[in-house]
Amino acid sequence: MKKINGDFFNKSIVSVDQFSKADIEILFELAAEYKKGISNGMVFNDLNGKILTALFYEPSSRTIGSFLGAMQRLGGGIIPIHGILNTSVVKGEILTDTINIFQSYSDVIAIRHPEAGAAEIAAKAAYIPVINAGDGTGEHPTQGLLDLFTILEKLQRTNNLKVAIVGDLKYGRTAHSLSKLISIYPKNTLYFISPPQSPMPDEVVKIVKKNGAVVKTAKSIEEVLKTIDVLYMTRVQKERMEEEVYEKMKNSFILTGKMARAMKKDSLIMHPLPRVGEITMDVDSNPRAMYLKHQMRNGMFIRMALLRLVLKK
Amino acid sequence: MKKINGDFFNKSIVSVDQFSKADIEILFELAAEYKKGISNGMVFNDLNGKILTALFYEPSSRTIGSFLGAMQRLGGGIIPIHGILNTSVVKGEILTDTINIFQSYSDVIAIRHPEAGAAEIAAKAAYIPVINAGDGTGEHPTQGLLDLFTILEKLQRTNNLKVAIVGDLKYGRTAHSLSKLISIYPKNTLYFISPPQSPMPDEVVKIVKKNGAVVKTAKSIEEVLKTIDVLYMTRVQKERMEEEVYEKMKNSFILTGKMARAMKKDSLIMHPLPRVGEITMDVDSNPRAMYLKHQMRNGMFIRMALLRLVLKK
Amino acid sequence: MKKINGDFFNKSIVSVDQFSKADIEILFELAAEYKKGISNGMVFNDLNGKILTALFYEPSSRTIGSFLGAMQRLGGGIIPIHGILNTSVVKGEILTDTINIFQSYSDVIAIRHPEAGAAEIAAKAAYIPVINAGDGTGEHPTQGLLDLFTILEKLQRTNNLKVAIVGDLKYGRTAHSLSKLISIYPKNTLYFISPPQSPMPDEVVKIVKKNGAVVKTAKSIEEVLKTIDVLYMTRVQKERMEEEVYEKMKNSFILTGKMARAMKKDSLIMHPLPRVGEITMDVDSNPRAMYLKHQMRNGMFIRMALLRLVLKK
Repeated sequence: MKKINGDFFNKSIVSVDQFSKADIEILFELAAEYKKGISNGMVFNDLNGKILTALFYEPSSRTIGSFLGAMQRLGGGIIPIHGILNTSVVKGEILTDTINIFQSYSDVIAIRHPEAGAAEIAAKAAYIPVINAGDGTGEHPTQGLLDLFTILEKLQRTNNLKVAIVGDLKYGRTAHSLSKLISIYPKNTLYFISPPQSPMPDEVVKIVKKNGAVVKTAKSIEEVLKTIDVLYMTRVQKERMEEEVYEKMKNSFILTGKMARAMKKDSLIMHPLPRVGEITMDVDSNPRAMYLKHQMRNGMFIRMALLRLVLKK
Repeated sequence: MKKINGDFFNKSIVSVDQFSKADIEILFELAAEYKKGISNGMVFNDLNGKILTALFYEPSSRTIGSFLGAMQRLGGGIIPIHGILNTSVVKGEILTDTINIFQSYSDVIAIRHPEAGAAEIAAKAAYIPVINAGDGTGEHPTQGLLDLFTILEKLQRTNNLKVAIVGDLKYGRTAHSLSKLISIYPKNTLYFISPPQSPMPDEVVKIVKKNGAVVKTAKSIEEVLKTIDVLYMTRVQKERMEEEVYEKMKNSFILTGKMARAMKKDSLIMHPLPRVGEITMDVDSNPRAMYLKHQMRNGMFIRMALLRLVLKK
Repeated sequence: MKKINGDFFNKSIVSVDQFSKADIEILFELAAEYKKGISNGMVFNDLNGKILTALFYEPSSRTIGSFLGAMQRLGGGIIPIHGILNTSVVKGEILTDTINIFQSYSDVIAIRHPEAGAAEIAAKAAYIPVINAGDGTGEHPTQGLLDLFTILEKLQRTNNLKVAIVGDLKYGRTAHSLSKLISIYPKNTLYFISPPQSPMPDEVVKIVKKNGAVVKTAKSIEEVLKTIDVLYMTRVQKERMEEEVYEKMKNSFILTGKMARAMKKDSLIMHPLPRVGEITMDVDSNPRAMYLKHQMRNGMFIRMALLRLVLKK
């Protein structure tokens, strides 16, 4: 896993750990440029003649859609391989063989895989850039980057923030990626709010603290609701808890319209989607809500910028 | 559901009810232009830089193929999401969230959904145009339009027609859309021919009559075979009838080569496909048969024209 | 099934039997040109405005990926129909109807089907070119062609070769296609090495001999290891043998790193992939190994050349 160090060309994107503040600035500047251009109806041909393989071992219409859209908005072509049944895995093929096959046809691979670490294995096997589109409980760097981009765009800063991250933090790869990213900026406080049996993993907490962020925990959203700048919601998976425990605590991890209205005026409500009840629908029209429109749309621009930077000098 | 009123730009296409005769004229003129151009090997770039999401909650290779082909023939890009397993529905995502996600990545959405009314819900949630590619037993407007286009092309008129529509009319969305479309033109007679337990729904019959068409019913194809201008066949679903009833009546709804030859010289045999036995294969070479080549191909040109009209002034 | 006879335009590609040595020369020359161009970062637009339907009744990420990549590298568009669940076959549609539908939308169809002979049925039903992307135990002509192209590229000749073909030869369509192709060149010897219950089919052996190749059999790879120029490995399917028989003979059909090192210096190790254990991973870094990088990549160039030749004069 190579650090970006100002040069994205031909590098795989496996983890947010590869990015310095300067790298993020380069990426965000280009993403903002694409956002402005697309909004004004511009047509880009930066990746004309290039091909993206979207190699998705798990179904994920959102993320594959974002990558496919991003590639074609830059004039590139696509090889969509969606869902494990569609791959040679059914014939017992090994991951590195599959990577060798698809790098023969394409210039970049975006991989989604159910196992943590798969993206790094893929990146090592490849001579073309591989982008991690989520690997099990590991990382989801493009999601973390689009989240940070949205925060910067709306709050005009990435420092001096109080950010609450809510849900099954043990398994939540988007929570891992975003926490690590935010922690590299000064004066940020992270509140981790999760059921007791799925706290943020120690290795993530260590990195975040080492980077300089203040880490706190809270038992419910209510505890921090009125002081935070960003409320980052993720799913709480019922099936991972005893029925009884779930019923007792579920309200601690659900955001309602009434709660949303009690938040600070200049605060943001975010969610990587899909949601399954942890944000009630009466929150959707709240101006703080970023999850339905802003995050998703920014995701495409971040991916456009990344694809462009790894594929061309 | 907004009427087109001469201006397709940025409007969703949910139902044939949105179209006036003048709207249909605009659409057909552009479709005919594309047909001529493509047949002459022209390359169109009208939708360069635009992206279509084809969001198919049901498998339908024909209709998704038609939309994907149409978009790319105009230089646009595609996000194919095919089959419910490939969507976040497996994680419990709600339709309006999904629409919000895909409109972030694309400029137009074509939706196929198993439930009637889904297309209208999607259209209301969207700020980009949504095209109904079939919603349950509801409507399938692009199919109705391509059928009408084929009739006009081959018979040189859309009025003064005797049209028999055959099959499970209660559930047949293509039968609904075509019936309503034909009824807005003068002096047309519609013969509805279906098993007794699945007649054309009352609300469709009402609209058709109000539009001015004469509505008749018949018990078998034979009854009207020699007088009609168009025989529009759809499937009779065996699984919706008792075995005994089915065996007795199935011949009333099956077209054979011999029957086809007894039809008027200038008449048309149509079917939205796929067929499962209701048109025997010896009909295929009959010059009246429109279903294998003409309807399908016209479908692509109608969809090209629609995509172009909703996406650009 | 028409012979190519120097003119690919608008012809279906069903079998390697259609190719003369001169046809292969035309094809390989264009493939080499594309290979050189793509490697130098050239962007091709030869098939701008053309659409490929990839109609895959079986999941095969490799082959569909290769066709999709090839078409888009030439500026064309794609209709990917992947996996039998995604097709109207679930509604009982017949193959020829499906072909009629997709030729309405596209300019060329690549078909993968579980039944031998399906590609020829499809080709007969179509007025656009159909390319066989593997039909059951029948043929897989583009695989055979890419294998031959790789041999020529690496050994600088297609004659005077000793080629061992290993695996379940009765069912191995790639083995059939390659054997027939090699046999049309002078002074070649083919060694067929398979479990006794799945030998190379008599009809293939007859053609190969008639073409002038010398045919021999061997019981294990070891027997021929030090004399052959090409070792073409395919899968031995455990499930087709009794457990006991399999255990006894499996080593005869498995290539290890040690064996690979004992081969002639200028020899090649090939495999159509996916493999399931018949080439151990310590062979991968052997310079003779062609299967991970060279064959796959050449496959895309062969398919680019074929698509171009059948679609344009």
